[in-house]
Amino acid sequence: MCKQAAIHLLKIHKVILQPVVNIAEICAQKGVEQVVLSPGSRCAPLTIAFARHPKLTVRTVTDERSSAFIALGMALTSGKPTVLVCTSGTAALNYAPAVAEAYFQQVPLLVLTADRPPEWIDQLDGQTIRQQNVYGLHIKQSYSFPAGFAHPDAAWHAERMVSEALNEALAFPAGPVHINVPLREPFYPAPDEEVTFDQQVKVIEEVANNFALSQTQAVQLQEELQQYKKILVVAGQDVLKPDLLDSLEKFSANTGAVVVGDIISNVQRSPGVIRYQDAIFSSQDESLLQQLQPDLLLTFGKSIISKSLKLYLRKFKPKAQWHLQPAGQVADTFQTLTKIIRCAAPDFFSSLGEREWADRAYAEIWKRTDGRAGRFLKSYTAEAGFSELAVVAQVLQQLPQQSHLHLANSMSVRYANILALAPGQQVAVFANRGTSGIDGSNSTAVGCALTSPGITTLLTGDLAFFYDRNGLWHNYLPQNLRIVLLNNHAGGIFRLIDGPKQQPELEPFFETKQALNAANTASDFGLNYWAVRNYEELTEALPKFFAADAGAGILEIFTDSKENAAAFAAYKQALVKALS
Amino acid sequence: MCKQAAIHLLKIHKVILQPVVNIAEICAQKGVEQVVLSPGSRCAPLTIAFARHPKLTVRTVTDERSSAFIALGMALTSGKPTVLVCTSGTAALNYAPAVAEAYFQQVPLLVLTADRPPEWIDQLDGQTIRQQNVYGLHIKQSYSFPAGFAHPDAAWHAERMVSEALNEALAFPAGPVHINVPLREPFYPAPDEEVTFDQQVKVIEEVANNFALSQTQAVQLQEELQQYKKILVVAGQDVLKPDLLDSLEKFSANTGAVVVGDIISNVQRSPGVIRYQDAIFSSQDESLLQQLQPDLLLTFGKSIISKSLKLYLRKFKPKAQWHLQPAGQVADTFQTLTKIIRCAAPDFFSSLGEREWADRAYAEIWKRTDGRAGRFLKSYTAEAGFSELAVVAQVLQQLPQQSHLHLANSMSVRYANILALAPGQQVAVFANRGTSGIDGSNSTAVGCALTSPGITTLLTGDLAFFYDRNGLWHNYLPQNLRIVLLNNHAGGIFRLIDGPKQQPELEPFFETKQALNAANTASDFGLNYWAVRNYEELTEALPKFFAADAGAGILEIFTDSKENAAAFAAYKQALVKALS
Repeated sequence: MCKQAAIHLLKIHKVILQPVVNIAEICAQKGVEQVVLSPGSRCAPLTIAFARHPKLTVRTVTDERSSAFIALGMALTSGKPTVLVCTSGTAALNYAPAVAEAYFQQVPLLVLTADRPPEWIDQLDGQTIRQQNVYGLHIKQSYSFPAGFAHPDAAWHAERMVSEALNEALAFPAGPVHINVPLREPFYPAPDEEVTFDQQVKVIEEVANNFALSQTQAVQLQEELQQYKKILVVAGQDVLKPDLLDSLEKFSANTGAVVVGDIISNVQRSPGVIRYQDAIFSSQDESLLQQLQPDLLLTFGKSIISKSLKLYLRKFKPKAQWHLQPAGQVADTFQTLTKIIRCAAPDFFSSLGEREWADRAYAEIWKRTDGRAGRFLKSYTAEAGFSELAVVAQVLQQLPQQSHLHLANSMSVRYANILALAPGQQVAVFANRGTSGIDGSNSTAVGCALTSPGITTLLTGDLAFFYDRNGLWHNYLPQNLRIVLLNNHAGGIFRLIDGPKQQPELEPFFETKQALNAANTASDFGLNYWAVRNYEELTEALPKFFAADAGAGILEIFTDSKENAAAFAAYKQALVKALS
Repeated sequence: MCKQAAIHLLKIHKVILQPVVNIAEICAQKGVEQVVLSPGSRCAPLTIAFARHPKLTVRTVTDERSSAFIALGMALTSGKPTVLVCTSGTAALNYAPAVAEAYFQQVPLLVLTADRPPEWIDQLDGQTIRQQNVYGLHIKQSYSFPAGFAHPDAAWHAERMVSEALNEALAFPAGPVHINVPLREPFYPAPDEEVTFDQQVKVIEEVANNFALSQTQAVQLQEELQQYKKILVVAGQDVLKPDLLDSLEKFSANTGAVVVGDIISNVQRSPGVIRYQDAIFSSQDESLLQQLQPDLLLTFGKSIISKSLKLYLRKFKPKAQWHLQPAGQVADTFQTLTKIIRCAAPDFFSSLGEREWADRAYAEIWKRTDGRAGRFLKSYTAEAGFSELAVVAQVLQQLPQQSHLHLANSMSVRYANILALAPGQQVAVFANRGTSGIDGSNSTAVGCALTSPGITTLLTGDLAFFYDRNGLWHNYLPQNLRIVLLNNHAGGIFRLIDGPKQQPELEPFFETKQALNAANTASDFGLNYWAVRNYEELTEALPKFFAADAGAGILEIFTDSKENAAAFAAYKQALVKALS
């Protein structure tokens, strides 16, 4: 090649590649720390830009379904947007389950999908689908990166778009955003070409509002609030927020309001919080149930696990329900919603909880009932035979302090929610309750573990674990990961709920028996492995498994699906008795 | 419960469940044979309806991504729509990659997703996303099943919809259709309640057009056709169609037109078909390339693998390109499209190929060149060192007659296409070239194997294989399945193509080294397992592996990614020399 031609080629490279290189720079300047790539050719300019950026931690994971859940786990622990990069075609669709989970769980992700340029869509080229708006209604915003940079406004458009997307990902309610990036060849810089990160790239900063109440609003709401004597606060799912815990504790202490929180609400470390609601509402004592009925229900946060709490509140309706949420669509989970208050929950509780007026007797009944349920659970599970509920109780008790717990869907999260965390346990809890899928829990836990110093424990069942086996298929096994696998060789939940267990299809089509155990998986991916079948083995394994320096491990607890069902039925019966 | 209340409950069940039961009956009456379910509670009425239907073969697969590709494989072998049933939430999204593949590969699927009723969408209930139109632009049609049956027209609407959906799935171009089915409790029939299939259910039959040319059209096209002397027919991907093979053979024999077909076009069993186009166009002999240039390019079918053929035709443009396609959007793959003819390809070739007028010398050059390329490939791969191209040559030669071959994406399909099938080989070829994803190839091959009597061989690489490991995670391992796994512990393609191999990111971010081998996977799922590392081991293993009664097996062929790249570069050099 003559020198002029070489210079010309370098210029083309520059024009095509620089806007992509700028994406990485803007991400770094706007606080992104973690990037998860999946391999591909079309996405090579993005891969190179991110891989070479000095300030970003970049990993590559082949299965895009897992990549996206890993990114979700990272964003959950840090609250910062994780960047995802994939090639064109079904790669983008494999992100979709995690994108939907991020949307409903309100977790910030920036999804960058490489694409063919528009002229090559629908021309039977490989790895080409219709990527614009591919996440449909499960994305906060979809952007199309410019395909050409001939017009001088294109560079401005491209740079502005990255800032806009990251601002949108973090704006309340946080969530995933998508930039589809059409790329023409050349995909690779010339061998001797350096990639330069332009520090002067355009960045738009967004200063978020703190969603405080005005003084007038606070006074007015305080007045209204005082009409109600029996005040029940129900916290929905959220990550651990110290300022919320503080304000909630003070509000409850000052006013006498009762605070109920599922394990995924991350308010259980406050000692005064009611935590055994799932058990409490199995009670058939009508007089007790009536005494627990609130005048005012105050809610904030996202989803509730406890089905019995939901059913209770839908039946024993409060006079009013106020929901605290800074912005966005509000769900009427209990069918009792009467007022939406656009403010941050900590601000509400610290602005309004200065005086005592609520009915202390009401709080007392709740506390007494919660105490009874808690004592029953403790003694019952301590003496029960070897079955899942009792086993999970032991595992939860032995969780290391300052650790993370990720709860897989189906029975794992339900067992843990029934049993609850003790007030002293310094454990942050995560669960993919945005969509409650059984997919992606291994990956999410891996993402958590990769971005947090302490131990991350995943509590999962066999279907969820093997569903997401590829969450372990990469070169970044976090040594602080601990997987507690409840293996009953089936979707055991179907034997626990009413309906399927009376059908002839129970075993072949609902439970879906599966024969795997995790020994080979542990060997494939280099994890320690313990298999336990009784209490002695469990008691011996747990301290070794949870030891800080034990390294990544799987603790596989084998139980029998039928015995679990019998044990769960016995627990329910004993519970009703204990609460009557 | 008093008797009256029990009767009332049975009636409610009937009203809610019967329309769902009817879906299964309509599917059976309209020719559906295969159903793939995934477990769930919301979808229980669908599960029960399909599981109990006496005429349907129903299986359950837990990972929905795999379920959907298995269903695709089944529909590919049979040409009949496969029914998919999943529960609500991300289950539906996990179908999306296979749905997109079915859309672009034009494979009929009926996707039934259970959903919450409309009033419970966005209320923070579990497994609830926004399922209407969830497949965006990658579905032929999306339907919403009635949520209530109070109005008498609802039953008609529901039954009509199932017929419409199945008719649409099969209407040319075939593809996936989606019915979102909102379901309210009760999900299960009462324990003593029988499910009755109503044979009198409404069914709308559709008699498809045969897309023949009228006599006037045929005469006029024949006249136009005779202006062109050098006629090149290029067949795109399609399943094996005996009537197409017949008409194409006669057309070519009568007229002197040249027929080129990639391995996925399934026309290679005709002896006269040009099959080494991928090799031929590596030639740098300008005069040869000019001699091969057509006046008229006749195309039909879907995608082309051979990139060198595409690039050749985009450069050595024909005077005109006619594309034969009964209906639907037409791609301009070669950038030379001038006329779209709305007819079935076999009809075109049998209506117009009665006379000889084409340039026989043109056909001779093609035949001679193809012969040279074929002889070169045969002798070169017979003498080459142990690397992927040579290994695949041996595997292809030993494929059992009357068998199916599924080619995974990335290098597997490319190697096989370079090498081609010999004319005598009675092998039907499948590959997911609708979207060309590396996802889903194990599952698709499993679906093929479950619905065809002979052996189904999957040729795959390590990334594609482990990506879709869950394609083997179910209780239906087909004993006629044979997996040839080319394990180079990486995405070897990135070392073969230009660009990435010069980048420092090659190993960590493009190849993405992975350490797994398939021994544990074979043991987990009960497949026979052979590991081979040289020709002696390969030669010994192949006949045992392919033996009709050997049972399902994995033949894992270990090669080195760097040696493969060196061998492929040497092959390319030798090829250029051989064709000069």
